[in-house]
Amino acid sequence: LPTEAQRDALEVVLVTPRNPLNIGAAARAMANFGFRRLAVVAPFAPTWREARSAVGAEELLQNAKSTANLAEAVCDATLVIGTGTLTYRRPEQPVVLLPLLAPLIRQELERGGRVALVFGPENHGLTREDLSYCQILVEIPTEAHQPSMNLGQAVAVCLYELALRPQARSIGEKPAAEAYSLPYTEIGAATAASGHLERVAGLIEETMRAAGYSPESMQAANRHDLRLTLRRLSLREQDTRRILGLFRRILWRLKHTPIRDDKSD
Amino acid sequence: LPTEAQRDALEVVLVTPRNPLNIGAAARAMANFGFRRLAVVAPFAPTWREARSAVGAEELLQNAKSTANLAEAVCDATLVIGTGTLTYRRPEQPVVLLPLLAPLIRQELERGGRVALVFGPENHGLTREDLSYCQILVEIPTEAHQPSMNLGQAVAVCLYELALRPQARSIGEKPAAEAYSLPYTEIGAATAASGHLERVAGLIEETMRAAGYSPESMQAANRHDLRLTLRRLSLREQDTRRILGLFRRILWRLKHTPIRDDKSD
Repeated sequence: LPTEAQRDALEVVLVTPRNPLNIGAAARAMANFGFRRLAVVAPFAPTWREARSAVGAEELLQNAKSTANLAEAVCDATLVIGTGTLTYRRPEQPVVLLPLLAPLIRQELERGGRVALVFGPENHGLTREDLSYCQILVEIPTEAHQPSMNLGQAVAVCLYELALRPQARSIGEKPAAEAYSLPYTEIGAATAASGHLERVAGLIEETMRAAGYSPESMQAANRHDLRLTLRRLSLREQDTRRILGLFRRILWRLKHTPIRDDKSD
Repeated sequence: LPTEAQRDALEVVLVTPRNPLNIGAAARAMANFGFRRLAVVAPFAPTWREARSAVGAEELLQNAKSTANLAEAVCDATLVIGTGTLTYRRPEQPVVLLPLLAPLIRQELERGGRVALVFGPENHGLTREDLSYCQILVEIPTEAHQPSMNLGQAVAVCLYELALRPQARSIGEKPAAEAYSLPYTEIGAATAASGHLERVAGLIEETMRAAGYSPESMQAANRHDLRLTLRRLSLREQDTRRILGLFRRILWRLKHTPIRDDKSD
């Protein structure tokens, strides 16, 4: 059972939910399983108003934060996990079944990490852009012909699995990481927060522009790949500091060195 | 993963749900996890109409059965499981945590048993009378200060746990029955269906009346205890046949033997 402090290091993030009832349902499940940090990304104003003014609205909903975009919501998370149906997509990150991922998330929380569990809107789930902020995707094992879960129910099932008392699982259980080799196993306590990685991505992009890359090569698709790559590397915070230092230096040089004519050499 | 036939031997029973959305949510979770048999006990007519006429109402909802009472709904179940918050009640049956109960339910289905999973109304949950039809109660481990789950979310969490692919649990897991000694372990494949037990209870009651028990001693409280006792015994079908035979004989005797005056001896 994660401690209270550990549970407070897990944030449930709802991206643009459309139905206020679903925000309430997510909050209810969080209260049931002892989680308190809720963020809602770019909610429709009436939806957000209605959800927060619901009769019996929890303290949790009153304390929920609303952010302009997903990057801001997951800014300080060391592990960002995307949820949703993957039937019609080829995922770009490792996909792990919920019962196997839960012990790893608990481990991350025990190590002092900060976890964001991200849920997409009811109609289409997380976009490819949203998913690019995620290190790993979680799959709730559902039926092929009806894979898509109701938002509030998906939140409940995930938090149930995360909050499970260890004694509720059998003794002699191998840690999932041992039984199934996952890329994620490598992520240590000092994994860089999502915000750090975004700073690295931004600086690399600026550097590339300064280095004369054409604007086309810095379009959305490349930005997307860069973001994914940085997350796949499982960078530690000190790695990002080194990378930032390096690129700042390169960038400074690029901006202060006059462009030399090749012929002058 | 239970087979299709095994899953069709599990029935989700909703007792007098008040909110049509919750019936829809339960049906959605059933479709997500591959279950198809839904029974609704004594639904309010408008609730039931609205739930079934909902846009996109599943085939599942169209095929759902509506029964007058819980006894009828669980009539052919060999294992009836009650759900709900037990914080304010002292349960009269064994209570098992959901993750530990799920393997036992799967086992019952594999043996050819028929399982009913019973959910109470949103406001107060299952009554003591409802619970008297249950051999065992399941507890979803929730927080003490917010234990009560939303109906649709509770259904989703239970079915998620029941439908889990075995490989999603670690290898070397001991069966729950071994790790935790449960009264339930004794229940075999031939456990009598709920309807059989009700017939036994009815006949015993009739016999007691015929034997001159005062009407007060056959009031609700005693009926309740009798029902619970019959379930605690884990009777097999052949046991119930023997008991029925015995009590029929006693009853016949009681009705056909003139009352003798003690003094005539």
